[in-house]
Amino acid sequence: MKQLGKHIILELWGCEKQALDDQPGVEKMLVNAVKACGATLICVKTHKFSPQGVTGVAVLAESHISIHTWPELGYAAMDVFTCGEHVIPEDTIPEIRNFLKPDKVEVIDIKRGIVDIEEVLA
Amino acid sequence: MKQLGKHIILELWGCEKQALDDQPGVEKMLVNAVKACGATLICVKTHKFSPQGVTGVAVLAESHISIHTWPELGYAAMDVFTCGEHVIPEDTIPEIRNFLKPDKVEVIDIKRGIVDIEEVLA
Repeated sequence: MKQLGKHIILELWGCEKQALDDQPGVEKMLVNAVKACGATLICVKTHKFSPQGVTGVAVLAESHISIHTWPELGYAAMDVFTCGEHVIPEDTIPEIRNFLKPDKVEVIDIKRGIVDIEEVLA
Repeated sequence: MKQLGKHIILELWGCEKQALDDQPGVEKMLVNAVKACGATLICVKTHKFSPQGVTGVAVLAESHISIHTWPELGYAAMDVFTCGEHVIPEDTIPEIRNFLKPDKVEVIDIKRGIVDIEEVLA
């Protein structure tokens, strides 16, 4: 069996509210996270909501990283989806912790595109 | 209890290979899917890989929709992440089925940002 994509879901609670509402800071964190996991950035897009909250997506040569923040609740939802053996999605976590400073991080690990290697090679 | 985000993971198998490698078609499908679920598009970005495969992300006022395709395997990995009561992520599925024509669709439904309403209101 082989998985085509590695997808980790991060539920980040008790984050610094100022960081969650800092659009340039979130964008920089995404770029740093891309480097940290060994991926190649195609483009990054962030958006600031009124009165608060930031959305950001980094499109990668190896899939994507996304973030959506709720500063009023100290919460951020992140997804790190990568493909290829050389990219390790978990390696983004220190950069994310360093910027958002969450009290609690829940990680859900999802194998995407599970294929039977024998079948693929046939 | 309340969830801040509605996130559906779609594992799409047996898709039309031509559709999976059709960058303008994937972009149009994303835009149609955004409309279908009642969301507001901020921007859409797609990328074509060599020799094959497409990545696309639609950034929404209510989170994001992403797709990564493996035409050689007839597989696409999609995520539809929305927030707000008025957006129904499942409503994207007919548009996706219509374009990719998968033989099999696996759906994983994930509640993101589960909060205790009493606590939030306190």
